Amino acid sequence: MPDPFDRLLSRRGRLSHPWSTVASQPRRPDLISFGGGVPDPASLPLAELQRAARTVLKAEGTEALQYGTTYGDWALQEELAKRHAVHPDQVMIATGASGALDALCAAFLDPGDIVLTEEPTFTGSLWTFRAHGAELVPVPVDEGGLNTQALRRLLRDLRSKGKQPKLVYTTPDFQTPTGTTLHPSRRQELVEIAAEHGCLLVEDTAYTDIRIEGESLPPLLSLGPDQTVQIGTFSKTIGPGLRVGWLLGAPGAVAAAARVRTDMGSSVLLGRILARFLAQGSLEPHLARVRELYGAKRDTLVAALTEHVGENGAWSVPTGGFFLWLRLRRELDARQLLPLAQKEGVSFIPGFRFLVEDRPLPALRLAFSQLPLAAIKEGGRRLGKALQRA
Amino acid sequence: MPDPFDRLLSRRGRLSHPWSTVASQPRRPDLISFGGGVPDPASLPLAELQRAARTVLKAEGTEALQYGTTYGDWALQEELAKRHAVHPDQVMIATGASGALDALCAAFLDPGDIVLTEEPTFTGSLWTFRAHGAELVPVPVDEGGLNTQALRRLLRDLRSKGKQPKLVYTTPDFQTPTGTTLHPSRRQELVEIAAEHGCLLVEDTAYTDIRIEGESLPPLLSLGPDQTVQIGTFSKTIGPGLRVGWLLGAPGAVAAAARVRTDMGSSVLLGRILARFLAQGSLEPHLARVRELYGAKRDTLVAALTEHVGENGAWSVPTGGFFLWLRLRRELDARQLLPLAQKEGVSFIPGFRFLVEDRPLPALRLAFSQLPLAAIKEGGRRLGKALQRA
Repeated sequence: MPDPFDRLLSRRGRLSHPWSTVASQPRRPDLISFGGGVPDPASLPLAELQRAARTVLKAEGTEALQYGTTYGDWALQEELAKRHAVHPDQVMIATGASGALDALCAAFLDPGDIVLTEEPTFTGSLWTFRAHGAELVPVPVDEGGLNTQALRRLLRDLRSKGKQPKLVYTTPDFQTPTGTTLHPSRRQELVEIAAEHGCLLVEDTAYTDIRIEGESLPPLLSLGPDQTVQIGTFSKTIGPGLRVGWLLGAPGAVAAAARVRTDMGSSVLLGRILARFLAQGSLEPHLARVRELYGAKRDTLVAALTEHVGENGAWSVPTGGFFLWLRLRRELDARQLLPLAQKEGVSFIPGFRFLVEDRPLPALRLAFSQLPLAAIKEGGRRLGKALQRA
Repeated sequence: MPDPFDRLLSRRGRLSHPWSTVASQPRRPDLISFGGGVPDPASLPLAELQRAARTVLKAEGTEALQYGTTYGDWALQEELAKRHAVHPDQVMIATGASGALDALCAAFLDPGDIVLTEEPTFTGSLWTFRAHGAELVPVPVDEGGLNTQALRRLLRDLRSKGKQPKLVYTTPDFQTPTGTTLHPSRRQELVEIAAEHGCLLVEDTAYTDIRIEGESLPPLLSLGPDQTVQIGTFSKTIGPGLRVGWLLGAPGAVAAAARVRTDMGSSVLLGRILARFLAQGSLEPHLARVRELYGAKRDTLVAALTEHVGENGAWSVPTGGFFLWLRLRRELDARQLLPLAQKEGVSFIPGFRFLVEDRPLPALRLAFSQLPLAAIKEGGRRLGKALQRA
């Protein structure tokens, strides 16, 4: 039944979320879901968070309950500035990385403006760009991350048409959904391309802290500090229910995002608690613990796939993050595999959900972060069975 | 120096916040500021909040750190639904009342859409409407609150021009900045007018819980449940630094606001802590305490104005909220009074700041909520002196 106020809705109010077109997965206790990019529930640092909350409410509660600025709490700005080697004024706290991206889009996008985004990518970000009326231009991701050659071609093409794209969006580390990491030489190249074409580079670092092995690669922000804004979040490390993320980097862009906010800024209380969590040294030991945990989970998944999927799929082993991207035989749309898999008692996110335009895609995303090891093993077995039937 | 990314800014990104055009007030320890609408710092319920936080992190921390929906935490939805006699699905949690209004505007306003707003009113709300490109039509506020006769005339005029306004914005209880309460007969009338003209009625309840004396009046939502959305907040009762507010009421409108959010919803952890704060019965005793406190502050201000301002000003005694609206002699723009007052060691918000279009206004807002009694008394004396000099 249409609502009486439907006729008053804005352009944005009339959009359908891409996810809403996908039937929600059945809630079955026997179903093993490789679905959400959610941290392991047993690993959350509750005791440390409680300690931080107690200290803040006792020692600086009155201040933590006052209005802050639209940049958020200054104490968290300072802690994040230290961690990311920027000035505190270059940090804005937001409702998750998604809230940071939303504020950035509000500051820079009018309907019809062009955003280049790697593809496949995080559906939530595509939704945010769409909500702001962006015209999305997909740039392919390959084994080395965002394909810079393709980006260059697309940008030249746009320039020849007299069009000025505004944002280039990428997740250099353990990209959603492919788990890919952007090659070091491409990082430098990407910054140069963005500078050449006058675009703002948006570096999504949601999974950067979840490195399972190898050395950290230089963030785009470090290579192009005037050209780049980073979005980041505590959702994958401390807990999604915090809804605390940030935008940091190029000063003018961060200032613009803080200026357009009409919600008077993010929670000072939460900000102060997280600042305390960082200051009391709780983050790094926690990260060390969960990196090991996710490493074991990834290895278990890879072993299960090797044993049960074998020739029916192909994958690269991610060096961090929550996801493994399983490529299927060319003719098999993962969307069609899903009901068969659910029948076997396993589910996943079919690849088409990470695309700018819906099309069949013989690939799917497996999140190994949330499930216990035994469930990962059994899930791999069930997936293998479903693939044999397909 | 212009930022290199200035040329990429959106329409919204190029707007200046109306407050940014006003020089910030000097930070002087000797200055008595009747400025911000901020709760008394010594009254904040820190112990009860700490108890709620401890219980949540201990008993349901893992759940409180998981993703919620864009409606926010269900436990807080349920507690607010009980308190406001609606269904939990009719409640969306947001970043303060300002965040709730922002989401509502995103769902309903395209640039050029018409919003009728009482005037003078909360500058923050005007900023939000402007950020969404609204064309603002002011409706005068008199002793009985929003002038419904004027509203009717304006709506008829718009209809005759073929224009369909989308929102009518009002604060029926202890309005910012005038402290006025909407007359009971006008409440009924307002709901009827909105229904007749097919507008959504936006009822700002930021100060409703701060009733100093008299009986509560029926909220617009109770009179026109299909026509009205309420925005509300814990900022004036528990603490602004929480940044927790809500949108509740007309189901389709609340659903639309939740649908357009791209930030994945407000903090589940904060929501759960506030739900616990309500469930453990901490709100009502706290409200009883602060009502008495703000009553004493209001009375002190009224006594000081009576003694020191006398014939140089006129005011109505507000029955709740944080503000007293001081009307000056016709020829005196409060903006011009401000430097004189600052010289005497007292400050306030000049009335023009609460207008849709800047014009001289012989009125100013005095917030009595934050200051200790002695400062209120002395502030009144200084204000009287400044007025004698003006």
